[in-house]
Amino acid sequence: MSLPSPSYTITLRVEVAASQRATSTVVAAVADAGGAVMGVDIAHSTSHGLVVDVTCDTIDAEHGERVVAAVNAIEGAEVLKSSDSTFLMHLGGKIEVTNKVPLKTRRDLSRAYTPGVARVCLAIAEKPEDARRLTIKRNTVAVVTDGTAVLGLGDIGPAAALPVMEGKAALFKEFGGVDAWPVCLDTTDTDEIVRIVKAIAPVYGGVNLEDIAAPRCFEIEARLREELDIPVFHDDQHGTAIVVLAAMVNALKVVDKKLEDVRIVVSGVGAAGNAIIRLLKAQGARHIVAFGRDGALHPGVRTEDPHRRWIVENTNVDGFAGTLQEGLKGADVFVGVSAGGILSGSDVAQMADDAIVFALANPTPEVDPQEAAETAAVVATGRSDYPNQINNVLAFPGLFRGLLDTGATDITTELLRVAAVAIAEVVAPDELNSAYIIPGVFDHRVADAVADAVRRQA
Amino acid sequence: MSLPSPSYTITLRVEVAASQRATSTVVAAVADAGGAVMGVDIAHSTSHGLVVDVTCDTIDAEHGERVVAAVNAIEGAEVLKSSDSTFLMHLGGKIEVTNKVPLKTRRDLSRAYTPGVARVCLAIAEKPEDARRLTIKRNTVAVVTDGTAVLGLGDIGPAAALPVMEGKAALFKEFGGVDAWPVCLDTTDTDEIVRIVKAIAPVYGGVNLEDIAAPRCFEIEARLREELDIPVFHDDQHGTAIVVLAAMVNALKVVDKKLEDVRIVVSGVGAAGNAIIRLLKAQGARHIVAFGRDGALHPGVRTEDPHRRWIVENTNVDGFAGTLQEGLKGADVFVGVSAGGILSGSDVAQMADDAIVFALANPTPEVDPQEAAETAAVVATGRSDYPNQINNVLAFPGLFRGLLDTGATDITTELLRVAAVAIAEVVAPDELNSAYIIPGVFDHRVADAVADAVRRQA
Repeated sequence: MSLPSPSYTITLRVEVAASQRATSTVVAAVADAGGAVMGVDIAHSTSHGLVVDVTCDTIDAEHGERVVAAVNAIEGAEVLKSSDSTFLMHLGGKIEVTNKVPLKTRRDLSRAYTPGVARVCLAIAEKPEDARRLTIKRNTVAVVTDGTAVLGLGDIGPAAALPVMEGKAALFKEFGGVDAWPVCLDTTDTDEIVRIVKAIAPVYGGVNLEDIAAPRCFEIEARLREELDIPVFHDDQHGTAIVVLAAMVNALKVVDKKLEDVRIVVSGVGAAGNAIIRLLKAQGARHIVAFGRDGALHPGVRTEDPHRRWIVENTNVDGFAGTLQEGLKGADVFVGVSAGGILSGSDVAQMADDAIVFALANPTPEVDPQEAAETAAVVATGRSDYPNQINNVLAFPGLFRGLLDTGATDITTELLRVAAVAIAEVVAPDELNSAYIIPGVFDHRVADAVADAVRRQA
Repeated sequence: MSLPSPSYTITLRVEVAASQRATSTVVAAVADAGGAVMGVDIAHSTSHGLVVDVTCDTIDAEHGERVVAAVNAIEGAEVLKSSDSTFLMHLGGKIEVTNKVPLKTRRDLSRAYTPGVARVCLAIAEKPEDARRLTIKRNTVAVVTDGTAVLGLGDIGPAAALPVMEGKAALFKEFGGVDAWPVCLDTTDTDEIVRIVKAIAPVYGGVNLEDIAAPRCFEIEARLREELDIPVFHDDQHGTAIVVLAAMVNALKVVDKKLEDVRIVVSGVGAAGNAIIRLLKAQGARHIVAFGRDGALHPGVRTEDPHRRWIVENTNVDGFAGTLQEGLKGADVFVGVSAGGILSGSDVAQMADDAIVFALANPTPEVDPQEAAETAAVVATGRSDYPNQINNVLAFPGLFRGLLDTGATDITTELLRVAAVAIAEVVAPDELNSAYIIPGVFDHRVADAVADAVRRQA
């Protein structure tokens, strides 16, 4: 996958002679070096020379340097500066706090701040539930991380996690109209994280846990759900599970099989795998075998980890013991939330006819999606450059929109399930096919549909 | 002070006959009942009747009810609904989180979120100081409270404090362009508050402590200043002190006295009083006597409280022991940050010629400002309905603007002092008089002047 991408867009500021040909030569050199030119803008112009900004996608940082070198090699051209659009976009952060009320006059100030605000404070002190009506609590979600499991990058710490949490907040607003705020915690102590989230909760109508390493994330979520009166959601678990179930419902329609009947193989028993298994079961799946690094989880497996034990006790009714490859033989469905490149096309070929393959490891799927598609009927990945992207942004904005609108205090498995079904149903029968089992991330019908389903359920 | 005010503005929705006279009768009835009519809007109109919205300021809730009754007493008129503008303004809160970057296309998403954001995260992981460049940390301040000393309302808790913190955040943005976020903590434990603020600090470029009860507030501020690498400011102390010093500098010009020479009486030795004494001394004041509830703090006073001890050791060089009233005799300056109505006009009359009186207790000043003005040359209060309002909003937005712009890690006394002088200097020599010693809160020159002074100093 070495194609130029918008995550490596650079802008070269180039000084050239003042001629049409000089500019064309620069553009040609960028293209010859493999850069995908997006546009050329004149920055300055004088009678003897031009300064042009050439914006192009590149493959990676090293490729960007090669593009710069190619332009510098042109006689009479000089790269004055090379800037990276992704970094430019992040300068000063991606979200801001803005005022919803005017503060231009004494009259405004008397109402929004002192002395008028005192009456609003007293009203809430007397009737605490009015906080949801008279403050930002009505529409606010804390995006909480300790920075220990950020994207595929691992434990990079709370400061380095902030760009992701800002991005998440931006998606919350764009797709759900939710005011989300990053809470990046400089501690990895479970007790302390629980205490802190409880302490900051008065400002928020919900908590979205994000990129916290397993197994700590399970305990934090469970304790906060128990102790807080606002909904707590761990997106890496339940967001993924919702979108997987949504895609599964539609994939099964494409191959005309029933969830109750199919044999499902899940690779990966971490946060996401666990939640996916629970939600597939809630929708009616009966034949699931889960695989960790050491093969199938079966009744003979001894484990101290309560989440693995739950899987042992609630899957693999036939007691299959063996490797992932062996387990795949004759299976109808594969769901991978594990590691890239662990399967080959020939492993997929051993599956039942009309197999469904969700290879969700990122950035490298469990099996090359093109190889998988040679025998499987439906293939989905976590990537945006293949059809059927399983992307959490389909779930969390609408889910919290619905939760906040109803003032919900809890998130049940049934609520997650109806959210998944709502996403699936956005794809109309006449739209459904093997390359379109799940709506795209920019399909604005999705958040509305999820919010509606949640409002009805909550 | 029983005049209608904008903090008690109500809108009455009234059904009347469809005639000019019917509407006029309603407006007259509101005015006769003491309501100050702000406007009349037609909500609906049919051939046989009108529904009009009459908006008027009232004195308090009980007065509002009397206004409603007066309208209901009119033959043919009926109040359908009465709504309170202050509460309406607070519905759903006063601030929101908005996106600074577009998220309309896959290209946007690839840069602002995955996969592009991973590169920004890695850059910060490798070079932590880049967080100030590439995240919201550059412009973000936490407004932290435990809800124990909110306005004059006392310990109303974190949820009821939120409207004030939202208002503060709105002022931060309006006057300083700072993104401030409310952190209302559901704990009053000093150690825990310190731990929490340290844990959430990665997201913020500064901390504004607000409405935390003394003496806890002193320890929290001192420990956070010691342990954090971002500036920590307790507005109730230092914000007040800055604006008092600014007003004092100009008041002394009006009466042509020097700070070094004047005898200053400070009533109130809590958070604000302590900070005011420190800042007046930093500017050169030498003759300060502070009074608590039991009279003057003098070398004979024994106290365990380190902040009172500091006052004992650093004021009252002549060892005056006596009551506030006795201490006022011959004094040049009175600064009250204590309790309403503790002094009379005749107490003020005992002061030196051309006395300066800052009676800052809210909402009732230490002495009636009109009585004080009978003998004092300059009178200031914390109220917006008298000249010379001492209002913290003159200080904190510009102060943090300057701190964030320079990436300052500390707030020194000298920095507070230059901020105060900068505010004083906004009042030009030809503008200065006894009723205009301090700029108004909507004077946009102030925040710029403070930010400039802070940037030069930091």
